[in-house]
Amino acid sequence: MASASSSTPPFHRLLLTGAAGGLGRVLRPRLRRHCQRLRLSDRADLGSAADGEELQPAALEDRAAMRELLREVDAVVHLGGIAVEAAWEPIQAANITGVYHLYEAARLNGVRRIVFASSNHVVGFYRQHEVIDALAPPRPDTLYGVSKAFGENLSRMYFERYGIETVCLRIGSSTPAPENRRMLATWLSHDDLERLVLAALTAPNAGHSIVYGLSDNRTRWWDNRLAAHIGYRPQDSSEPWRAEIEATQPVPDPDDPTRLYHGGVFVELGPYD
Amino acid sequence: MASASSSTPPFHRLLLTGAAGGLGRVLRPRLRRHCQRLRLSDRADLGSAADGEELQPAALEDRAAMRELLREVDAVVHLGGIAVEAAWEPIQAANITGVYHLYEAARLNGVRRIVFASSNHVVGFYRQHEVIDALAPPRPDTLYGVSKAFGENLSRMYFERYGIETVCLRIGSSTPAPENRRMLATWLSHDDLERLVLAALTAPNAGHSIVYGLSDNRTRWWDNRLAAHIGYRPQDSSEPWRAEIEATQPVPDPDDPTRLYHGGVFVELGPYD
Amino acid sequence: MASASSSTPPFHRLLLTGAAGGLGRVLRPRLRRHCQRLRLSDRADLGSAADGEELQPAALEDRAAMRELLREVDAVVHLGGIAVEAAWEPIQAANITGVYHLYEAARLNGVRRIVFASSNHVVGFYRQHEVIDALAPPRPDTLYGVSKAFGENLSRMYFERYGIETVCLRIGSSTPAPENRRMLATWLSHDDLERLVLAALTAPNAGHSIVYGLSDNRTRWWDNRLAAHIGYRPQDSSEPWRAEIEATQPVPDPDDPTRLYHGGVFVELGPYD
Amino acid sequence: MASASSSTPPFHRLLLTGAAGGLGRVLRPRLRRHCQRLRLSDRADLGSAADGEELQPAALEDRAAMRELLREVDAVVHLGGIAVEAAWEPIQAANITGVYHLYEAARLNGVRRIVFASSNHVVGFYRQHEVIDALAPPRPDTLYGVSKAFGENLSRMYFERYGIETVCLRIGSSTPAPENRRMLATWLSHDDLERLVLAALTAPNAGHSIVYGLSDNRTRWWDNRLAAHIGYRPQDSSEPWRAEIEATQPVPDPDDPTRLYHGGVFVELGPYD
Amino acid sequence: MASASSSTPPFHRLLLTGAAGGLGRVLRPRLRRHCQRLRLSDRADLGSAADGEELQPAALEDRAAMRELLREVDAVVHLGGIAVEAAWEPIQAANITGVYHLYEAARLNGVRRIVFASSNHVVGFYRQHEVIDALAPPRPDTLYGVSKAFGENLSRMYFERYGIETVCLRIGSSTPAPENRRMLATWLSHDDLERLVLAALTAPNAGHSIVYGLSDNRTRWWDNRLAAHIGYRPQDSSEPWRAEIEATQPVPDPDDPTRLYHGGVFVELGPYD
Amino acid sequence: MASASSSTPPFHRLLLTGAAGGLGRVLRPRLRRHCQRLRLSDRADLGSAADGEELQPAALEDRAAMRELLREVDAVVHLGGIAVEAAWEPIQAANITGVYHLYEAARLNGVRRIVFASSNHVVGFYRQHEVIDALAPPRPDTLYGVSKAFGENLSRMYFERYGIETVCLRIGSSTPAPENRRMLATWLSHDDLERLVLAALTAPNAGHSIVYGLSDNRTRWWDNRLAAHIGYRPQDSSEPWRAEIEATQPVPDPDDPTRLYHGGVFVELGPYD
Repeated sequence: MASASSSTPPFHRLLLTGAAGGLGRVLRPRLRRHCQRLRLSDRADLGSAADGEELQPAALEDRAAMRELLREVDAVVHLGGIAVEAAWEPIQAANITGVYHLYEAARLNGVRRIVFASSNHVVGFYRQHEVIDALAPPRPDTLYGVSKAFGENLSRMYFERYGIETVCLRIGSSTPAPENRRMLATWLSHDDLERLVLAALTAPNAGHSIVYGLSDNRTRWWDNRLAAHIGYRPQDSSEPWRAEIEATQPVPDPDDPTRLYHGGVFVELGPYD
Repeated sequence: MASASSSTPPFHRLLLTGAAGGLGRVLRPRLRRHCQRLRLSDRADLGSAADGEELQPAALEDRAAMRELLREVDAVVHLGGIAVEAAWEPIQAANITGVYHLYEAARLNGVRRIVFASSNHVVGFYRQHEVIDALAPPRPDTLYGVSKAFGENLSRMYFERYGIETVCLRIGSSTPAPENRRMLATWLSHDDLERLVLAALTAPNAGHSIVYGLSDNRTRWWDNRLAAHIGYRPQDSSEPWRAEIEATQPVPDPDDPTRLYHGGVFVELGPYD
Repeated sequence: MASASSSTPPFHRLLLTGAAGGLGRVLRPRLRRHCQRLRLSDRADLGSAADGEELQPAALEDRAAMRELLREVDAVVHLGGIAVEAAWEPIQAANITGVYHLYEAARLNGVRRIVFASSNHVVGFYRQHEVIDALAPPRPDTLYGVSKAFGENLSRMYFERYGIETVCLRIGSSTPAPENRRMLATWLSHDDLERLVLAALTAPNAGHSIVYGLSDNRTRWWDNRLAAHIGYRPQDSSEPWRAEIEATQPVPDPDDPTRLYHGGVFVELGPYD
Repeated sequence: MASASSSTPPFHRLLLTGAAGGLGRVLRPRLRRHCQRLRLSDRADLGSAADGEELQPAALEDRAAMRELLREVDAVVHLGGIAVEAAWEPIQAANITGVYHLYEAARLNGVRRIVFASSNHVVGFYRQHEVIDALAPPRPDTLYGVSKAFGENLSRMYFERYGIETVCLRIGSSTPAPENRRMLATWLSHDDLERLVLAALTAPNAGHSIVYGLSDNRTRWWDNRLAAHIGYRPQDSSEPWRAEIEATQPVPDPDDPTRLYHGGVFVELGPYD
Repeated sequence: MASASSSTPPFHRLLLTGAAGGLGRVLRPRLRRHCQRLRLSDRADLGSAADGEELQPAALEDRAAMRELLREVDAVVHLGGIAVEAAWEPIQAANITGVYHLYEAARLNGVRRIVFASSNHVVGFYRQHEVIDALAPPRPDTLYGVSKAFGENLSRMYFERYGIETVCLRIGSSTPAPENRRMLATWLSHDDLERLVLAALTAPNAGHSIVYGLSDNRTRWWDNRLAAHIGYRPQDSSEPWRAEIEATQPVPDPDDPTRLYHGGVFVELGPYD
Repeated sequence: MASASSSTPPFHRLLLTGAAGGLGRVLRPRLRRHCQRLRLSDRADLGSAADGEELQPAALEDRAAMRELLREVDAVVHLGGIAVEAAWEPIQAANITGVYHLYEAARLNGVRRIVFASSNHVVGFYRQHEVIDALAPPRPDTLYGVSKAFGENLSRMYFERYGIETVCLRIGSSTPAPENRRMLATWLSHDDLERLVLAALTAPNAGHSIVYGLSDNRTRWWDNRLAAHIGYRPQDSSEPWRAEIEATQPVPDPDDPTRLYHGGVFVELGPYD
């Protein structure tokens, strides 16, 4: 549980996109505690609305629907779009045009803060023995990674022009537990994911920031020194899973990408077109 | 005239996209001298083919046509696409999907080198008293600038994955002569443009590089120190035009963007949608 | 309570200037425990001397008095001078000429270590989404900030020339408790202030160092990585006050300096002349 | 002669302070060509006014006189003050309080650009085998150097608060000819001094900048890469004097400060109080 | 005790060189727990083999013996050689030629990971108020320090050429307890030494890395930020010893090397030839 | 011809080692002009002594002979040793032990300046699209490159301890003319070699410096910005040879090391043992 709490939730209405996806389902009940109303959107089925929830499905490709979606919203947690490597057309539609629609909708509706789910695949071609911070130039590993770099650059422009603040979360691997050797470094627990998203939503001055999304893992490649203003402090670690993973999973070959690159197997995925 | 010359042109077939545009028309006769055949493409009328020219119009949005366009090509000079701020749809179609089609075509046809016309608008929000080099994080000023940053990141991925080399030219203002006070810093003469493109085409090892495109102007904001391997040495300067421009054009107000930002007036253009 | 302790206090005689001021009154009883004699000075009333205390009022503007003040002193904690924005004359007299008198007195008396209360207002014009370390160039926000930068530079010169070591403490906001949203980042608890001053007094090799003075707050803008040799480890945090402050104090407007700049409202104070 | 020239001088009225000093006498006739009226000030005798000159003596310590001095002035070249190491009181009066008066006068009179004669003695304690740029932290060698660092910081504050632009010229050694071995590196010819001052006066966007003032000497320690926006291009060099100086002047001892430090003998001057 | 543990030791056979030396005797029983067989080597007497140990004495200068020594070894912890300043010939034989033999033997036997005991004396001439990371250029203080820098460079070459991974441990002072004031900063507890060596042995991707070997001491000069991928987390500190050391050991003179330099007294040792 | 000249040569006695080697024969007559006596050493035949020359053959492995060799010498140009990849024993004897003997001899004879022929093979594993300066960490490509890195580190230690200044010249390819495509970037003309060596010999304060040895070639990978104090200004270029080389020599394959790495084919040479 994150530390920022008070009797009155700090937000009137939050919007969570991609609410039916893997991380969306994790955050849905957690964000609910930090706002009076939580608007949820996805192209997949959202089930029924709980108390204080508003369901407002919208396709990222639908400009008008996106404009409606952001109406009277304080802040957005944007998990929507495609979160794996895929063919160009869906990546383009959801992660490029969709993100453009999101920011235009924010501009037109006066939304001032967006938490943008970027990805470690923006820097996936760095080697695992290279420790990088937010200033490392992008080295995307996939069309997916390139599309997330697009979102980082587009949001930078909306910050400089219109003052819309964005925290780009370069999320590692957020799952219930680390599942393999690479995730011992990249894992982000669900509780730490919540801490990270809340820190990004509530940081007094977020500007346009890049934060790596990982727990306090013993081995890691990402340095959040330049994001201290966001105030994310992970409290979990992959370490308790290490012994079992190392005992049961074979050591990858020396040239296996899961042991060479930040982005792991993504550097070899595709092309899918 | 650039210095690399020999009796046999170094390239068998070069492709020039955007050949009917402003810089395309400048480079068309100049590139002709450095290859046995020059393939030209544009969506606008290319006139008739000169000796050694091949006209092959192709829309950047047309994947199949792009794949044909790069067949049996040694290298590409990609000027195609939109070179000003515009509405999202055309920017997206030409500068994002179009560039993706270009790189897929290169991959499928085995093309090993692309000279990509990027833009100073990738870094347009830096202040004119900030001198930056190729490592400065992008601060795009427009959708156009964001689309060019997309091309830089996409080409980085094609270099890391497939070894396709790209030189990204962050072109300032390439016109017959500098036309205003800002262009005294950003001007790239047509002869220096040719030198720059040739250097990018012929550098022995280009990797994935970013080079600023400006002449040897007395006042400037861009430092090409990290691109010394490309071997671009400008020989022109805006200085001969300075006296006349300063005598005839009013000094902009202190908060006029043409005097504040690398990107000049672009920081205020649009939105056009 | 700080960790360095032993039966015999490590210092024979410490001098605390500004001992009647806000932080001076905090440190007076605390420093007493770390020396055999504590000399106290201020232009304001110091009350009566406790056991082991020596009261020796001296005006910073009075060169001869300052020379006397530093006689037979092991080390100095210099809190004296003006600690807010003010008109030029008093700033100049106390924080510029006064600091010069202090260092001349140290040189003439053979004092080898000074802990100098500098201020975050030396870097007050950085944005709150910029995390800086000790190498960030000064961007003072006031005459006060400029006067503290003067002290940092003067003490650098006395270190290079005469080997007098100085630790410049760029103190954030040292109060009993954080009082507003900005202080959630800048707060330095009184216990951590003591830890910081003791670390600066006792570091084996202080050279000429710059340390930011803040507690272990969750959100912060200052990186003390380069001051690890000083050995300051904060043990307090503003976090317990966050909920109440965020619940009771309105969110500042987006262009309110208390939410934009390291220096907060100081960027708008004055001029007072 | 500098390159910026036109039939109409670019400035209506320039102010040159310290006009009776060594560099002031050099610049007096040269600046005259670049403005319609040249106002001259010094505490020493200025002789009689040439055509287009205005003599307006003012002591830097005299706030009211300084305010009058900057009335209806386009820009200031501030050479006034003390240019060598001296006792504290005169340094303080002229280079600290005097510079404060200058900037207050600029603020109150709406002057937008100041060229401030700083000094290499701001960084005098660097070793001569260390090549530094404008980001190197100050290491002043004297009270004089500290006072120049004060001017750099004060002018930074006036830029951030009020938009008054300043170019700080860290001048090396500007004399008719280099006079000793150290000056082979630090020499700034009088013609290059003029080029430098004009570049600083006319740079379209000067912001707050630091430029080292040296000619194109073969051996040097200062890197002006970060000041390319100012557009200073030296055209002279100390090299023609090298052979004679090396033939006639003894090699200094290895521990002689003139061969060790950027600031040369200044690191050993004083104290004079 | 280090955190990585499982029922099956992660290594089949580890080699520990220098096993009869000070740190070798510390690590001998500890490494035994992390492998099925521990091969031990030294030129000094190794006593008798415990269960699971293999004694295989070999002189570093003996190429053939070294090649035998690394046969069927998973990884090496190389403590062998001379660990103090000494005359050239022994340093050269053991730390230069010996290390070359070690890497050739690794190459020929297919060993993929070496933990190399480097030393803080590679950077011994930095001042104790300078905090450095792994990118700081070497400033060795002795022939010993130069020989360790040789090992770092040689192993870099074997990594780039042959993919043999090396973690260079720039060990501070590993003793049962800190013994003097300098060691309050440089101390590495024996338990932390074990953690460090295990982290270096088991890091999934070690590449060629440099890690400083120190405990979590309050005052320190070394920043391991760039080695986060190794996953070393110290759990001890010199702090409990501080009070007694400071109470019983005199403060060194200001120009005593033990208080000035990272390398302490080493900067004055020798020459011994 | 280099620019530093005067009627009296600046040096009484220079020592040139490796005088019978390729570059030694080039420098032998050229250095003769800059000293009253030129002492020459090599293990190969030096022919007969010209006027002002002293022949004093000495093996680098012979400590006593080396000590004699440096007697009454003002400065040394050390080209001696092995300049290609070779087996360990000769590399070790000449380039490691030999360099140690050289510096011990310098220390014992009071020699204050050594120009050390290092090599680009110290950084041979950088890619040709990476532009590096003197702070780039070593990435040696061969035993030869490692041995040159040893010399750089050893000389650093002699500078810090004993004040013996060394300029390390990381020479590219010094031949009468560039011979292949890689040498278009790495070429150092014989005249520029002389300029470089003279600059290194005569720089007023050389400290311990690293300078890349290349002519003013259009394409290059090495940035001498940090060596401006040495005063090396190349006046030649490989450009006149480019057209012929590019016309007559085939383009290497994309994975040919001569087109990938700074060190070219060296990354694949050996092992020779």
